[in-house]
Amino acid sequence: MPFTKHEIELLNNLLPNEVEASRARAAYGKTASYIPELAKAPQDALGIHMIDVDGTTVSGGDCGLSFTMQSISKVFTLILALMDNGEQAVFEKVGMEPTGDNFNSMLKLELVRPGIPFNPLINAGAIAISSLIHGNNPAEKNARVLSFFQALAGNDTLAYDMDVYRSESDTANLNRSMGYLLKDNGVLEGNVEDVLDVYFHHCSISVTCGDLARMALVLANNGTDPLTGTALIPRRYVQIAKTFMVTCGMYNASGEFAIQVGLPAKSGVSGGILTMVPGRAGIGVVGPALNAKGNSISGVHLLESLSRELDWSLF
Amino acid sequence: MPFTKHEIELLNNLLPNEVEASRARAAYGKTASYIPELAKAPQDALGIHMIDVDGTTVSGGDCGLSFTMQSISKVFTLILALMDNGEQAVFEKVGMEPTGDNFNSMLKLELVRPGIPFNPLINAGAIAISSLIHGNNPAEKNARVLSFFQALAGNDTLAYDMDVYRSESDTANLNRSMGYLLKDNGVLEGNVEDVLDVYFHHCSISVTCGDLARMALVLANNGTDPLTGTALIPRRYVQIAKTFMVTCGMYNASGEFAIQVGLPAKSGVSGGILTMVPGRAGIGVVGPALNAKGNSISGVHLLESLSRELDWSLF
Amino acid sequence: MPFTKHEIELLNNLLPNEVEASRARAAYGKTASYIPELAKAPQDALGIHMIDVDGTTVSGGDCGLSFTMQSISKVFTLILALMDNGEQAVFEKVGMEPTGDNFNSMLKLELVRPGIPFNPLINAGAIAISSLIHGNNPAEKNARVLSFFQALAGNDTLAYDMDVYRSESDTANLNRSMGYLLKDNGVLEGNVEDVLDVYFHHCSISVTCGDLARMALVLANNGTDPLTGTALIPRRYVQIAKTFMVTCGMYNASGEFAIQVGLPAKSGVSGGILTMVPGRAGIGVVGPALNAKGNSISGVHLLESLSRELDWSLF
Amino acid sequence: MPFTKHEIELLNNLLPNEVEASRARAAYGKTASYIPELAKAPQDALGIHMIDVDGTTVSGGDCGLSFTMQSISKVFTLILALMDNGEQAVFEKVGMEPTGDNFNSMLKLELVRPGIPFNPLINAGAIAISSLIHGNNPAEKNARVLSFFQALAGNDTLAYDMDVYRSESDTANLNRSMGYLLKDNGVLEGNVEDVLDVYFHHCSISVTCGDLARMALVLANNGTDPLTGTALIPRRYVQIAKTFMVTCGMYNASGEFAIQVGLPAKSGVSGGILTMVPGRAGIGVVGPALNAKGNSISGVHLLESLSRELDWSLF
Repeated sequence: MPFTKHEIELLNNLLPNEVEASRARAAYGKTASYIPELAKAPQDALGIHMIDVDGTTVSGGDCGLSFTMQSISKVFTLILALMDNGEQAVFEKVGMEPTGDNFNSMLKLELVRPGIPFNPLINAGAIAISSLIHGNNPAEKNARVLSFFQALAGNDTLAYDMDVYRSESDTANLNRSMGYLLKDNGVLEGNVEDVLDVYFHHCSISVTCGDLARMALVLANNGTDPLTGTALIPRRYVQIAKTFMVTCGMYNASGEFAIQVGLPAKSGVSGGILTMVPGRAGIGVVGPALNAKGNSISGVHLLESLSRELDWSLF
Repeated sequence: MPFTKHEIELLNNLLPNEVEASRARAAYGKTASYIPELAKAPQDALGIHMIDVDGTTVSGGDCGLSFTMQSISKVFTLILALMDNGEQAVFEKVGMEPTGDNFNSMLKLELVRPGIPFNPLINAGAIAISSLIHGNNPAEKNARVLSFFQALAGNDTLAYDMDVYRSESDTANLNRSMGYLLKDNGVLEGNVEDVLDVYFHHCSISVTCGDLARMALVLANNGTDPLTGTALIPRRYVQIAKTFMVTCGMYNASGEFAIQVGLPAKSGVSGGILTMVPGRAGIGVVGPALNAKGNSISGVHLLESLSRELDWSLF
Repeated sequence: MPFTKHEIELLNNLLPNEVEASRARAAYGKTASYIPELAKAPQDALGIHMIDVDGTTVSGGDCGLSFTMQSISKVFTLILALMDNGEQAVFEKVGMEPTGDNFNSMLKLELVRPGIPFNPLINAGAIAISSLIHGNNPAEKNARVLSFFQALAGNDTLAYDMDVYRSESDTANLNRSMGYLLKDNGVLEGNVEDVLDVYFHHCSISVTCGDLARMALVLANNGTDPLTGTALIPRRYVQIAKTFMVTCGMYNASGEFAIQVGLPAKSGVSGGILTMVPGRAGIGVVGPALNAKGNSISGVHLLESLSRELDWSLF
Repeated sequence: MPFTKHEIELLNNLLPNEVEASRARAAYGKTASYIPELAKAPQDALGIHMIDVDGTTVSGGDCGLSFTMQSISKVFTLILALMDNGEQAVFEKVGMEPTGDNFNSMLKLELVRPGIPFNPLINAGAIAISSLIHGNNPAEKNARVLSFFQALAGNDTLAYDMDVYRSESDTANLNRSMGYLLKDNGVLEGNVEDVLDVYFHHCSISVTCGDLARMALVLANNGTDPLTGTALIPRRYVQIAKTFMVTCGMYNASGEFAIQVGLPAKSGVSGGILTMVPGRAGIGVVGPALNAKGNSISGVHLLESLSRELDWSLF
C-alpha cells in the first residue's frame, strides 16, 4: 500500500522542522575516525529520501550528499550469498543471533564454539559472507556485487569510491585480524586477503539517500521492484534479511532502535541508514555524525520522530 | 482481524499430524533439571491452544497439562513495572539489547558498565524488574502480580504452585548470586531476598495453554481484551513488550526463532511458549522437553511448521 | 641466616629517608572505599617492621598503626585448610593458577569449567578455603582461626575488629554474589552465609606491622617460629603458601611485584603487606593509600627500594 | 655452587628409573597437531640433560633427539629485546602479568585497555617482542637472533629448521590474527608479516636437550657462561627472565609447576622444557607428548620427581 495523500502531506509538513531538530543532535556525535577518509564527511549534514510503492517521493535536507554504504552493504551481500548458495550453506558459516557485543568484537569467536560469527551483519559475519559470493576471483566477485547493487538501486552508475576503498584497506588491521581468526576457525575458504578485498570493496560503494531508498523499496516490496515489476530477490531471502535488520541491523543498539522506531534497518559508519515501511516505502537517510554505538545520531533521532508521528512500528 | 474460516479449517486439519510430528522431536530434548520439581514433567507431552480476537479457539495435543510460567511471566512483570513506574524509570535499571549470552549469564554485568542487565527478559533483568513492582512488602507485590495475571488470563483461579516455588527458591543459588551482584552494581533497591521472593513467586504461577493463549490475546490486541472490551495495558507498553519478545524472547535462540517463525514469543524452562499472531490471535504452547538453548524442542518445531504453512511471519 | 651487622646498619641508615620518599607516593593513591570503615584510615601513613631469625628488629614510620588483615589473612587460612584437609582435598576446590583478572572477578567462574576458583588468594578462592576450615559452626571455626593466627604472631591479644567486620559484612554484596555462585558451581559445602561469616571474620583480624612481621618470620623460617623453636606449620604447606605469594599474592600486580621486588608477599586492601626474606626475616608494612591494583602505593614503593638496595630478589 | 658428588651419584642412580616411569605418562598426552610438522615427533620419547656450573653433565633417555625451540625461544628474544631497547621501552609494549588464559588467547587484547599483551611469554607478547629486535629487515633480525642463541648454547651450528618454519608460517592463521590485532592496538611497529617472519623463525631454531641445558646454564649463572667466563647477558635481564619463567613460563599451568617443581622454566609445544637450578645447573628436557595445557606430559612428571627428590624448589 503506498503512502496515503494525508501521509504525504503530513510528511512534507513535518520534514523541514524535524530535519532541523534532528540535525542539531549532530553536535553530540562525531564522524567515524578509524577510516581516515570517512572523517572528512560534513559533520552536521542530514538528509532523508523516501519512495513509496507507487513511486511517490518525499525528501528533505542534504539529499545530494554522496557517501559509501559501509555496513549497509552487508544486507545485500547476505542476500546475494543466499541466492548463490542457499540457506543451508550460508548458515553453516554464520549464525542467526545478536551478539550484545561491539560490531567489531572477536570475543565470541574465541569463547563460543564452533567459532562461527553470530550473525551476518557484524563485521566477522559479513567477512564470512564475502567469502561465499560466487566468482573465480575477487575481481569477478566485485563485479557481480556491484551489478547486483546497481539493479537493486535502479542506478547503473553506482560505483566504488576508490579513495575510501584504499583508506579502508590500508587501515583495516582489525578486520584483517578477524579474517585470519575466521580462517583459523575454519569459517573462510580461500585466501584471506582475497576475501577482505571483496569485503572492502562492497563497503566502499558510493550512494545517495535516493539510492538507499530504492534498494530499501525492493525489500519493502518483498523482492520485486514495484516501479519496474522486476523480481530481483526471492521473498524468503527478503524475509531473512528484514528479520536480521530488526534483530541486528543497528549494531548493539538494535534492540533500542526496534523499541523506539520499530522498522527493519541497517546503518553504516558513514552515517547512512537504510530502512523501510514494509509493504509501503523505502527510506534512505544520511547523517555522518555518529553516536557512541556507531549509528548516525541525527538519523536515528529523525527516524524516531517520524515513526512516532506516523505510527510506523511493526510491533 | 480474526482467523478466516479457511484458516480455521486449515489449522484443524493440520494440527493432529503436526502435533504428532513435533512431539517426536521430544526424544532429542530433555526436561529442565536445575529446578528439581520441573524434571517431573511428562517428557513427550505437547499441547497448543489458540484463540482469535473473535474468541474462536483451535487446540491440539495435551492442552490440559498444567505447568508453571517460569520466564514467560517476565513479559508481564515488565509490563506491570512499566505501568507502575513509567518507561524512563524502568530503563534506568534495564537496557534494551539482546546479550548473545546465556539467559543466566553474569558476564556482561561485570564487563559492561554501568552493569545494568542488558534487557528485562534475561534472568538478571527480570530480577531487576521484580524490584520495581510496587507494594510495601513481598506479599503485597506478589498479590498485585497474581491479580494482574488473573485479569490478563480472564481466570481468577490462577495460583502459585508452591511446590515449584519452594523447589526454585531452595536451589536458586545462581539467581541469588545474580541478585547480590545487581545489588552491588546499584541496580536493586531494598533487600535482595525480598526481591528474589517476588521473582520466584511470579515464575511459579501455574497455567495451561489456554491461559497463555488468553494472555497473549491481550497483547495481540494491543492491550485490550477483545472478548470483554476491557483495556488492561496501555498500547505503548504492549509495543515495548512485543518488541522485546522478538529480539530477546527465546533466550539466545531469539534470532533464529525470528527467522524461522517470525512472531513475538516468550518461552519458559517449564516448556511453555506464549506467542501470538499480532492483531489476530493469542497462542499458548507447552512441551516440557527442552533443546540446548532452553526452549521447548517440540513447541518450537510446531510453531515453525504452522508459521510456514500459514505465512505468519511479521517479516 | 639472620641479617648481618652490615645489613642492619644499612637498613637503619636507609629507612628514615626511604620511608619519607615512599610516603610521598600516597598522594597518588587512595584508601579503599568499598568497605566504609577502611576509608577512615590515615591516607599518608606508612610503617615497616622487620624481624630476623635471631629476633633482631628494624622498624620505621608509623609502626604503631593498627589495621585489619583483609586479604593477608588468606595466606594463613589456606595453610590452616591444608593442615585440616591435606593437599588433595584443598586442590579439588581451588586451583593453582594466577587469573589475570581483578581479585573480585567472577568471569572465570562462569567461563572456565569446572568453575572452581583459580587460586586461593583471590576472593572467590579464599571464600572456598573458608568453607574448608574445620569446626562445627562458624563460631568454632572463627575461634580456631583466631587461635592459629595468635600462635603465628606470638600475640594472644590478636582480636577481631568488630566495626570492620560489620562494615564488611553489611556491604559485601559482591562477595555474597561470589559465595552463591560458588555454591551453584558445587564448590562450597554448607550454608553460604555461614561460610561468608568465617571469611569476613578472618579479614577483620586487627594487627600491627609487628604482628605481620612475626607471622611472616614463621614462613621465612619454613614453619617453625625461630624465636621459640615451636613448629607451627609443616614445611610443605609453607612452600605452597610462599609459591602462591609469588604468583598471586599482590592481586593482578603480582607479576610486576615479582620482577620489581622478587619476594613472596601478600597484600590487603587495608594497605598492609606481609612479606619476607626467605630464611632470614619477616616483614610487615602498612600504608593505607592504594594504587589502582589495590596494593599499598607507598608500601610497594618502599619494598622496591629496599629490595634493590639489599639485593633481596629470589630471582 | 656445582652439584655435589652425592647429588651427582643420586641423579645418576635415579635417572634410569625416573625416565622410564615418566615416559609411561606419554600415553596420556599427544604431540602438537596444529603445526603439522610437529605431529611427526616420536610420541613417547623422553630425554633430559643437565650441566652444572663446573661443566659436569648428567643425562638420561633420548638426549640425541633434535626438536625446535618453539616458545622456549621467547625467553631469549625477550632478553635480546631488553638488551636492544632497555626495560622501559620493552615494558611499554608488553606487561608483566600472568593472564590465566590460553597462550594463544586474544580476549584480554580486546577487553583490557590499553590492549598490550599481558606478558612477553604468551604468543601475543612474544610477537610484540619480535618487533623490538633491532635490525633493518627480517633477515638481519633473524641473523642477530640466531647468532645470540648460538653464543648462549656455545654451539655455532644451531640453525633454523626450515621445514618447521614453513609448516608454522603456512598454518599460522591465529598468530597472524594476533599480529594484526596488535597492530590495530598500536603495539607493533612496521609490517605485520615482517614481524611474524622473525617470530616464526626464532620458534623454528633446532636444538637438543644439551643445547637447552647450556642456554639455561647461562641464566642459572646470572648471565655469564661459567664454562667460558664470557658475560653474555646483564644480570638484571636474567633476573627479569627468570621471574617471568616462574610466573608465566609454563603457559597457564605455571602456577601448578611453581608449586610442584618450583624452578624457573619455559616450555614449548615441541615438548621441550628449559629449566635450571639457579646458581647451580642448567637443564634441558624433551618429551613431545603434551598435556592439556600444552606442556610435555612426561617432562613435567620427570621434573616433579627430581625436584622433590633433590629438594630443588626455590620456595
